[in-house]
Amino acid sequence: MSRTRKIYLEESEMPRKWYNIQADMPNKMLPPLHPGTKQPLSPDDLAPLFPMELIKQEVSQEKWIEIPEEVQDVYRIWRPSPLVRARNFEKLLDAPVRIYFKNESVSPAGSHKPNTAVPQAYYNYKEGVKKIITETGAGQWGSALSFATQFFGIDLQVFMVKVSYNQKPYRKSMVNTWGGQIAPSPSTMTEAGRKVLELDPNSPGSLGIAISEAVEMAVKDPDAKYSLGSVLNHVLLHQTIIGEEAIKQFSKTNDYPDVVIGCFGGGSNFAGISFPFIRLNLCQGKKTRLVAVEPESCPKLTRGVFHYDFGDTMGMTPLLPMYTLGHNFMPPKIHAGGLRYHGAGPIVSQLLKDKLIEATAVHQLESFDAGVKFARSEGIIPAPESTHAIAQVIKEANRAREEGKNKTILFNLSGHGLVDMASYDQYFAGNLQDYSVSEKQIKDSVAELDIFPAE
Amino acid sequence: MSRTRKIYLEESEMPRKWYNIQADMPNKMLPPLHPGTKQPLSPDDLAPLFPMELIKQEVSQEKWIEIPEEVQDVYRIWRPSPLVRARNFEKLLDAPVRIYFKNESVSPAGSHKPNTAVPQAYYNYKEGVKKIITETGAGQWGSALSFATQFFGIDLQVFMVKVSYNQKPYRKSMVNTWGGQIAPSPSTMTEAGRKVLELDPNSPGSLGIAISEAVEMAVKDPDAKYSLGSVLNHVLLHQTIIGEEAIKQFSKTNDYPDVVIGCFGGGSNFAGISFPFIRLNLCQGKKTRLVAVEPESCPKLTRGVFHYDFGDTMGMTPLLPMYTLGHNFMPPKIHAGGLRYHGAGPIVSQLLKDKLIEATAVHQLESFDAGVKFARSEGIIPAPESTHAIAQVIKEANRAREEGKNKTILFNLSGHGLVDMASYDQYFAGNLQDYSVSEKQIKDSVAELDIFPAE
Repeated sequence: MSRTRKIYLEESEMPRKWYNIQADMPNKMLPPLHPGTKQPLSPDDLAPLFPMELIKQEVSQEKWIEIPEEVQDVYRIWRPSPLVRARNFEKLLDAPVRIYFKNESVSPAGSHKPNTAVPQAYYNYKEGVKKIITETGAGQWGSALSFATQFFGIDLQVFMVKVSYNQKPYRKSMVNTWGGQIAPSPSTMTEAGRKVLELDPNSPGSLGIAISEAVEMAVKDPDAKYSLGSVLNHVLLHQTIIGEEAIKQFSKTNDYPDVVIGCFGGGSNFAGISFPFIRLNLCQGKKTRLVAVEPESCPKLTRGVFHYDFGDTMGMTPLLPMYTLGHNFMPPKIHAGGLRYHGAGPIVSQLLKDKLIEATAVHQLESFDAGVKFARSEGIIPAPESTHAIAQVIKEANRAREEGKNKTILFNLSGHGLVDMASYDQYFAGNLQDYSVSEKQIKDSVAELDIFPAE
Repeated sequence: MSRTRKIYLEESEMPRKWYNIQADMPNKMLPPLHPGTKQPLSPDDLAPLFPMELIKQEVSQEKWIEIPEEVQDVYRIWRPSPLVRARNFEKLLDAPVRIYFKNESVSPAGSHKPNTAVPQAYYNYKEGVKKIITETGAGQWGSALSFATQFFGIDLQVFMVKVSYNQKPYRKSMVNTWGGQIAPSPSTMTEAGRKVLELDPNSPGSLGIAISEAVEMAVKDPDAKYSLGSVLNHVLLHQTIIGEEAIKQFSKTNDYPDVVIGCFGGGSNFAGISFPFIRLNLCQGKKTRLVAVEPESCPKLTRGVFHYDFGDTMGMTPLLPMYTLGHNFMPPKIHAGGLRYHGAGPIVSQLLKDKLIEATAVHQLESFDAGVKFARSEGIIPAPESTHAIAQVIKEANRAREEGKNKTILFNLSGHGLVDMASYDQYFAGNLQDYSVSEKQIKDSVAELDIFPAE
């Protein structure tokens, strides 16, 4: 009868501060550079895009940043999220491991993205912003931001990569239901979009094009700002509530993770689960391993270079110091759309360079196989992105069995897959494949970056 | 800071017994009749379809029935479900009401259906059943049963109404991901299906046909049983964990509901939330109103007759005493597929006849309008079925405002709408309409029932 599965926190126990890892990093990051002048960026350079409070968070060295009451109030719709002991999955793997996951799929948008969407919407609202413009690939971010903006009376325009817009109609419906507007990109609403459509009226779009459309529209509208769902420091900051909750939850058990695992796209869900545990490694001498799991088809952490690079394919964003495959790298069309990004957030990149975290890569079929195993033991159908973390959990469990060592594993279930079921269909139909990226592809793609060596 | 939203129970506080309202009903139900002999049914008549433990529960007069440990163990994947104070929705309605909902959308299948799917799978497993066969309309039930059967190593065959099978591909994907088999009905796998296809190769199918296919296949296979997701007494019994949890959760507040609301298809989610409060009305003198909300397009409770009728359109099932529109009544194609059923479960029908509960009906557009209001204030996108309960909450709030009376309202959020987003698309596109059922339609349909008057 003591087979407890879920470790809850009361709402009153929810952390009231985000953890800013910049305060504890042994080596600071290199500064972002202006895309035109190549000089270090000033806060004013970002003012057309972001509200000042987020720009301050982007560069803050304060260790703890207060979560505003109004943000906590919206967080309480689904937070604190449960920490769950995956007892059935443990049994299936039959290894000397205890497996826990943070269930971020319980948010109304079905993923961890609202953790930053809500404060971003709030800070914009506080500074009088009337409209936010963003892009979305597979749609997780666009739908989360639509969920968030409605609470603060802010209009939302989402540019969604056209091929995904057509393939994933439910994401569009979610954006609309929460009150946001959404258009397939390239669109005729911006110069950038029109330029692309002139050259190729049937362009399927790309995240790079969508970013360009969103940035252009935001810069031209004095009442509007731009918003990004990953990569940047303030985005990662907001996600740390995941790991801070997990630490409080572990303190209610006799357990503590030996290894923490998160899938990796731009870095936000991985940062959210891992940074607070890095804090305890750095400040309390804990020795938890932190493992970022990327797809083999987009291996920036395991095979990219550490370099200054643009965030978008068009070269309009600031240059960021990061592990990258080059901004022109075109990742194969794996179904974990949220992981198809050429670069890694600057903080995560610096941590990897300093060997404070590890990185690994898994193939698409292995990740779906892991996802189905998880669904059939724990009941929750994971998002294609999250299955990458689960595949790594299986590897860690296998290693523990081989080594005969006990191990406690924590991973982030960043989202459920109920809006991505078409991906599972393709998997069961045998239509999915693994993609390998050749050395030459990476070499050619990063060769374009030689102007601004980061080292 | 005391704006608590969610009232949790610890897993250790989860009720260990289902509440069997049959023990407390002032008037017992009429017995079900054999479809051939028209004589009261014996337990043996049901043995080819159900395991004996479920047949016993169907007729049990015991007030409390133990929830087996193995069932509790699976329940703990998502239960206890949160009781949530809908503070933002309250603010929007600006009425002197406190609104709470039980969030049954937190189950991995996204609805309340696993509450009975899990024990049904368990009792079949205990009696050596190797395979379960069922039908599903919109797919909520089929997917929930696939979720449940996997835990007990039982094979599953689902017959899904063909028109829904094609319109809602994600439900099929969910069934497959959890390991079940699913076929569009009418199929060539059964005589019933083949007969229909001979007459009309393009038949869109119906729940009646799907039931016939499932029953036929179950009866012919000695290792298989049949399973139903609503209407029957044992199904409603399993759902009472919802209301029993809610009572425990209210005991942690200073509040108690004046009115409890649930949408109504066959009765299972309404029974789940309301029966435990009827218990306290009957046994402790409480005076909570219980309101079942059906669609105007399928108004069996508000405009049907109390009569013996078949559960399916083909007349193969036992005759049950219920409020019904007649088993040949064809409900208009509203998007709340789970509410498109001609009859009401016998227990609920008896309670309505005895005025222990109330019934009301709302139109489709009003329900979607309510659903969008809820999504834009509370963040959760409700299933089309659940929006009917929400529409009634708004009416109760308006009445409280008019009467200047304080009121505490509880409703059951039976599921989320993330797999039904196409319905919201249709609503926003202006493609949905209200359907009115004429007196003549009902009169003609129930005229066929005159052989077995229930009164």
